[in-house]
Amino acid sequence: MVKMISLITDFGHKDAYAASMKGVIYTINPHAKIIDLTHDIDPQDISSAAWVLYSCYQYFPEKTIFVCVVDPGVGSSRENILVDTGKYYFVGPDNGFISEIFCYNKDIKVYKLDNSQYWLNNISNTFHGRDIFAPVAAHLSLDNCTPESFGTLIPTEKLVILDYYQPEISHNTIRGTVVHIDHFGNLITNISSEFIIDKALKISIAGKIIDRLSLTYSEVDAGDLIAIIGSHNNLEISVNYGNAATLLDADRGSEIIIDFLDD
Amino acid sequence: MVKMISLITDFGHKDAYAASMKGVIYTINPHAKIIDLTHDIDPQDISSAAWVLYSCYQYFPEKTIFVCVVDPGVGSSRENILVDTGKYYFVGPDNGFISEIFCYNKDIKVYKLDNSQYWLNNISNTFHGRDIFAPVAAHLSLDNCTPESFGTLIPTEKLVILDYYQPEISHNTIRGTVVHIDHFGNLITNISSEFIIDKALKISIAGKIIDRLSLTYSEVDAGDLIAIIGSHNNLEISVNYGNAATLLDADRGSEIIIDFLDD
Amino acid sequence: MVKMISLITDFGHKDAYAASMKGVIYTINPHAKIIDLTHDIDPQDISSAAWVLYSCYQYFPEKTIFVCVVDPGVGSSRENILVDTGKYYFVGPDNGFISEIFCYNKDIKVYKLDNSQYWLNNISNTFHGRDIFAPVAAHLSLDNCTPESFGTLIPTEKLVILDYYQPEISHNTIRGTVVHIDHFGNLITNISSEFIIDKALKISIAGKIIDRLSLTYSEVDAGDLIAIIGSHNNLEISVNYGNAATLLDADRGSEIIIDFLDD
Repeated sequence: MVKMISLITDFGHKDAYAASMKGVIYTINPHAKIIDLTHDIDPQDISSAAWVLYSCYQYFPEKTIFVCVVDPGVGSSRENILVDTGKYYFVGPDNGFISEIFCYNKDIKVYKLDNSQYWLNNISNTFHGRDIFAPVAAHLSLDNCTPESFGTLIPTEKLVILDYYQPEISHNTIRGTVVHIDHFGNLITNISSEFIIDKALKISIAGKIIDRLSLTYSEVDAGDLIAIIGSHNNLEISVNYGNAATLLDADRGSEIIIDFLDD
Repeated sequence: MVKMISLITDFGHKDAYAASMKGVIYTINPHAKIIDLTHDIDPQDISSAAWVLYSCYQYFPEKTIFVCVVDPGVGSSRENILVDTGKYYFVGPDNGFISEIFCYNKDIKVYKLDNSQYWLNNISNTFHGRDIFAPVAAHLSLDNCTPESFGTLIPTEKLVILDYYQPEISHNTIRGTVVHIDHFGNLITNISSEFIIDKALKISIAGKIIDRLSLTYSEVDAGDLIAIIGSHNNLEISVNYGNAATLLDADRGSEIIIDFLDD
Repeated sequence: MVKMISLITDFGHKDAYAASMKGVIYTINPHAKIIDLTHDIDPQDISSAAWVLYSCYQYFPEKTIFVCVVDPGVGSSRENILVDTGKYYFVGPDNGFISEIFCYNKDIKVYKLDNSQYWLNNISNTFHGRDIFAPVAAHLSLDNCTPESFGTLIPTEKLVILDYYQPEISHNTIRGTVVHIDHFGNLITNISSEFIIDKALKISIAGKIIDRLSLTYSEVDAGDLIAIIGSHNNLEISVNYGNAATLLDADRGSEIIIDFLDD
């Protein structure tokens, strides 16, 4: 079983930070397989990292080790953790990056990374990604290491869990939120398709009304707004050949309201 | 024979879209080798993707599987295709991404991807890259799959072919076009070196005149314009230690005229 | 022994330049392992590449082959070189990219790449990364090639060495320089921790005074300036949850002064 390692960070691309983590990983496991998830999380935006990780992790091979380094508290008293869901591993600071995954899967094991034998010899105060998380992930990717090797099992109640956007759902209406704006300017909401498919509805966002769900972008003219079930199986607001975030001046956190119409 | 997989998309880097495709690929073929060609095609700019792909594919190992996902028509009635040139494979929506490659190589086989057994179980309407193209490429990268497995052979006449820039060549003059502006601001034209090497000429672009071809950037002072045969074996307009696109306010599609001088 | 190949360039991400190098490498060695160090060095900024490479290379596996293509002199009479430090290899134009590494390790071998049998058949005047450095690195990554294969040993005195920032250190004061600004806006200086740890000091930069070294970002409030020993074991100036470069309007090359206080 190949255990892949996937990196999600706020490091950007101009420095050697992500590459240094890879160098450390390959030094320990020359046969490691590494996937860059993204390095373009906004600096210090842990809750955005939590959402992006949650949005895609199930498309990765079983036993993938996700290393999440969005770590403004690096060097402080915050703990470092390894989470084992049975199917996947997650390594990073205990700062909430696991929040949305944990919400849907409480049956996990959490280890506090307190066994320094798997770390680099010199631990900086500003880059645990390179000095602790990369070597832990690399050793875990080897066949002979199990999660217990890296530290002490702790109760899941000790995990830092962030507030995150959840929709308010009633009979007549749903109040949801834009939880991510993607590269294309699509507004990805937290309203799951199951609540809205095949219903007569009116969607209100940023002062605009959309009066139906569409199936494909090309149902509307270039430049027009569209509501669609996106690849996360949630409601998305898009502009065909355009950028909905710009058109609507919407942000992460913008409110979206669904009103169901009487038939 | 290792069949590599190379991804060219307009996904950018901040989302998990490219990584999700890789997760799907490695789930099917844990030994896959993936090369990011680029994820920075301008959103929905199919013809730019077609040029970039054309400009480099011959430097990849034989049997590389190129997956091109610039797909504004996703979910509509446009077909999904697999192209086999004998030496390379190309997978993506039938929207013209293969145009310039096809222009120089008509001896190809085209398959309509209509065998859903190689797709993911749930197909979204907005992300066939993850749900169809990635699993098809991953299965094709395995030794036991051949192109026929994935769908029906269709006539090449059915392929969507985009108009693309071709130079007008006469005895005294060539009217060409800027077909790509690179990261350095170099203006890459569609004028092949064979037409201009060793000839006395005058190059006109954006109101400026360049009166000779140079061999290296350093033949001119920093900040000066230069005409050079670039790495695609085409005429390029550059600025030594500078950015020609900015200096000339030139764009993709800008006209360039070569006048041959009487000797 | 797997010899990894790591690429550092100023190519950016929108073109096929880095991917073309990878295609060439995998064509020669299908089992090559490639790490992108960074492709976001500022265009033509050799000294920045030299610093970034120096800052991280020791975290890579032994025998890694670093290929550095920041090459404004491409096609001119500048030489192409392969450097062997015993532990690592470096391939690129002889333009100074090795300067800071050489400063701390004079015991290296330098080869002029003059054996064209390991190059591509057609050598462009603008892209030696693809046509010379990638194939040389790929062949070197194979077990049967040694550095001597690629060219003539030359004296290290012939190496192009760039001036780079070195601090002026006296009993009472250190005058240093910002040598890199990272993605977070942290100002990384050339003042090593050994000179300042456990000393009473006053730090002056861009008209601001910082009166102590901190251990972690979270010691100060969000938005406040902090001086900290960073992951390169040098003094860094940061803003907790903020961007020091923006706040201070500082650049690469900005001066920083340490005054030691009488106890």
